[in-house]
Amino acid sequence: MATLILLRHGESTWNLANLFTGWIDVDLSPRGEEEAVAAGKLLGDAGLLPDVLHTSLQRRAIRTAQITLDVVDRLWLPTRRSWRLNERHYGALQGKDKKQTAEEFGADQVKVWRRSYAEPPPPLDPDDPTHPRFDPRYAGLPVDVLPSSECLADVVARMTPYWYDSVVPDLVAGRTTLVAAHGNSLRALVKHLDGISDHDIPELNIPTGQPLVYELDDRMAVVSRRYLDPEAAAAAAEAVARQAG
Amino acid sequence: MATLILLRHGESTWNLANLFTGWIDVDLSPRGEEEAVAAGKLLGDAGLLPDVLHTSLQRRAIRTAQITLDVVDRLWLPTRRSWRLNERHYGALQGKDKKQTAEEFGADQVKVWRRSYAEPPPPLDPDDPTHPRFDPRYAGLPVDVLPSSECLADVVARMTPYWYDSVVPDLVAGRTTLVAAHGNSLRALVKHLDGISDHDIPELNIPTGQPLVYELDDRMAVVSRRYLDPEAAAAAAEAVARQAG
Repeated sequence: MATLILLRHGESTWNLANLFTGWIDVDLSPRGEEEAVAAGKLLGDAGLLPDVLHTSLQRRAIRTAQITLDVVDRLWLPTRRSWRLNERHYGALQGKDKKQTAEEFGADQVKVWRRSYAEPPPPLDPDDPTHPRFDPRYAGLPVDVLPSSECLADVVARMTPYWYDSVVPDLVAGRTTLVAAHGNSLRALVKHLDGISDHDIPELNIPTGQPLVYELDDRMAVVSRRYLDPEAAAAAAEAVARQAG
Repeated sequence: MATLILLRHGESTWNLANLFTGWIDVDLSPRGEEEAVAAGKLLGDAGLLPDVLHTSLQRRAIRTAQITLDVVDRLWLPTRRSWRLNERHYGALQGKDKKQTAEEFGADQVKVWRRSYAEPPPPLDPDDPTHPRFDPRYAGLPVDVLPSSECLADVVARMTPYWYDSVVPDLVAGRTTLVAAHGNSLRALVKHLDGISDHDIPELNIPTGQPLVYELDDRMAVVSRRYLDPEAAAAAAEAVARQAG
């Protein structure tokens, strides 16, 4: 039996500003930092202490992990990072105001871009200075794997190899494994773990700052799943759903 | 040509309290945090941006790296950690007041324990609750590699394998490599790199929070070494020497 803990980063400065974020590397807001502290307390109270950490390459997930692990005195964990755990790339919408975008393209179109499984937003211009090909953290990657826009299906496709090749070996070795990542990379993982259909996945909301704990058997089949604070998680998922509406 | 950056953590809370620290996992003091910020600014101003991070398993080195890398927007670096980069284990002296210890054992004996290359302090009782065998971060290690006390020669012996097996491969691959560690694990490494004799090494002091930059050739021979801020580094080394006196 293996224990997997999923943790979506807390509120970012761009959540507050109501901007599309994606691969733009914004920081946590003070409230996001508080959410990370609270997540650490939940882990500590449950005696659920990770043995290894996986993060994306984005600071809001990295700092969430740092703050959460500081609370449980586990800064020393072996740490693995991958762009494959990054948030969904939001294409040309990145950096745009959500309300203005709805006015420009229509609320229905924006809802499709936000929620449809297979339709990505318009791509970011490859010459745009915010394109990942100009970011030093992706300098070791071939340009053709770097997204200019992604739908959730794209995230599933690029996240899943990391799950199999990097996370599963830690679980098989018996390590309690913390994955600190993003709304959509975690939705992709939960879709995979829980076998959620393409049709149903748009309705799934992962709350921020709420540790989601899976027990998995030796073949990585789900034995149980629970939020450490089910009431707070339900309220937070509700808030995410409203934001996405 | 490869670039290696050594960084000793800044002031800890126990530096302030004048206690022997060793493997006790104390935090940075506010001044230590400021030193880490200043180190980050020095790296940024020099355009010396690490590609990979190595740390000990101790929070004062880990947090120094976090703070320093935050300044240069490199929280996303691949991160490797090892107990082999830890501070020297100070044996039964850990947690004791430095002045009281000098009164109890005599200043000359304490100087030998602090500075001699080959004479370790009295060992920590293996049943002492602060012995590393009770610390979860070392749970994966066989008990017989966990020190109860170390002299600098012991640190050289346990640090060097990590240098060869983990740090050198990053340098050979052309990665600018940051090692965030401790006074004695870095003295051990500098002894190795600069070929300092057992006789001369007691006089070497590594200043806190001052990036020390080595250029190494393909065979890991030293081409050059420099502090990014030589005046501040000399003053800080002087302060360390006085403290050790």
